[in-house]
Amino acid sequence: MQRYFVSGNDMSETNVTITGDDANHIAKVMRMENGDHIICSDSQGRTVLCEITAVDRDSVHASVIEEIQEQKESPIQVTIAQGIPKGDKLETIVQKGTELGAKGFLPFSSSRCIVKWDEKKGQKKILRLAKIAKEAAEQSHRSVIPDVFSPVSFTTLLKQATDFDYKIVAYEEEAKEGETKRLAEVLYSMSPGSTLLCAIGPEGGFSGQEVSELKEAGFVSCGLGPRILRTETASSYLLSAVSYHFELMR
Amino acid sequence: MQRYFVSGNDMSETNVTITGDDANHIAKVMRMENGDHIICSDSQGRTVLCEITAVDRDSVHASVIEEIQEQKESPIQVTIAQGIPKGDKLETIVQKGTELGAKGFLPFSSSRCIVKWDEKKGQKKILRLAKIAKEAAEQSHRSVIPDVFSPVSFTTLLKQATDFDYKIVAYEEEAKEGETKRLAEVLYSMSPGSTLLCAIGPEGGFSGQEVSELKEAGFVSCGLGPRILRTETASSYLLSAVSYHFELMR
Repeated sequence: MQRYFVSGNDMSETNVTITGDDANHIAKVMRMENGDHIICSDSQGRTVLCEITAVDRDSVHASVIEEIQEQKESPIQVTIAQGIPKGDKLETIVQKGTELGAKGFLPFSSSRCIVKWDEKKGQKKILRLAKIAKEAAEQSHRSVIPDVFSPVSFTTLLKQATDFDYKIVAYEEEAKEGETKRLAEVLYSMSPGSTLLCAIGPEGGFSGQEVSELKEAGFVSCGLGPRILRTETASSYLLSAVSYHFELMR
Repeated sequence: MQRYFVSGNDMSETNVTITGDDANHIAKVMRMENGDHIICSDSQGRTVLCEITAVDRDSVHASVIEEIQEQKESPIQVTIAQGIPKGDKLETIVQKGTELGAKGFLPFSSSRCIVKWDEKKGQKKILRLAKIAKEAAEQSHRSVIPDVFSPVSFTTLLKQATDFDYKIVAYEEEAKEGETKRLAEVLYSMSPGSTLLCAIGPEGGFSGQEVSELKEAGFVSCGLGPRILRTETASSYLLSAVSYHFELMR
């Protein structure tokens, strides 16, 4: 069944209003009518089954049939801090990471980033990434849309890291040297509800200096398996491992 | 350091010959010269550090400096049986799957495949996928290039499945119904050296009939976490979970 996210203001105890692109999607793309059913989430964890009661030009109205109890959100809130990569890789990372359960994405610039973030075009890019996150969240039946933050400097990343319970850095030199214990150690030490920040370098990885600073800021340097992963694959590995550990293995 | 795969015939106890595109890459792209070092793998598990001794027009000669002992290959040989997806998704699946440790890729057609495999263009496509696998294997420092097989029918898939020790099918209806135990159960029952075949449907998934036939053929129906994954994300999840389970957690 088709799923839509609405803002909390547009969802009451008994009624839901869908506006904007989604209203258009319901009316024009899906050609739904009164009596058709949809699922709506307020992105705060409330998900309801609804019946459409009116399809207007700019909005769709629906009444709540029942609350849907489902646990689609990871017990661990993982934020991916991603060194800004080339091309459209950030879009891939946000789309796949949303499917795989990420709570947020924090792009950052570091010494080996090839792409310089353009402040002017940047805001538009963030809006586009937020849209990708919303659509991927709908498609993967999540009840929360992950946050896509505006890029920060490496120094700001280190400061913001203090907000997280656990911090790791995916460091390819660790993979090369056969580091295989630390990720599992970190995951075993976490409990449901914990927050995890995972820093992943851009294509060229982190400099030695940056890794030292990350470690000083409390990041645990982990290998993500023995093979060298591309920057856009590292987040998928981490999120899948977290999901396997907390959602399947236990 | 740059890595190249060579055929076993081109690697002796003491010498390696690199031909074709790779020789061109060394000479023209990397502009390497006598005395430069490269790493060569015979794709059977032997990896050596070499010094270039001659750069000819069509070939590069190198002498073996030392054997490299490294464990980059998963203890579990995972073959991804992938329902033929649309567009260039198969390329993504092969590239990411190679990085994440897959042993092979077996595309198959099933009732909900939208793309019909074109026998004529197909051979060219398989060669292209094999090239993607080789390049991804080099880039991720693997010592084995995964096999990319020509597509088979669903019936042939069921027959070939008998060659594998363990078989699972990623079934989104299981994820929807909250199945969370079986993947971990299967992985806990496997030991290093085992072979695993994982069947993943195309965009539209498997029909109920197909899932029944897969189960009859010994496939265990597993959810890959509570969220609904796109067809091209399912293999990444599975391979990451296998890597985490066997390469990091133990």
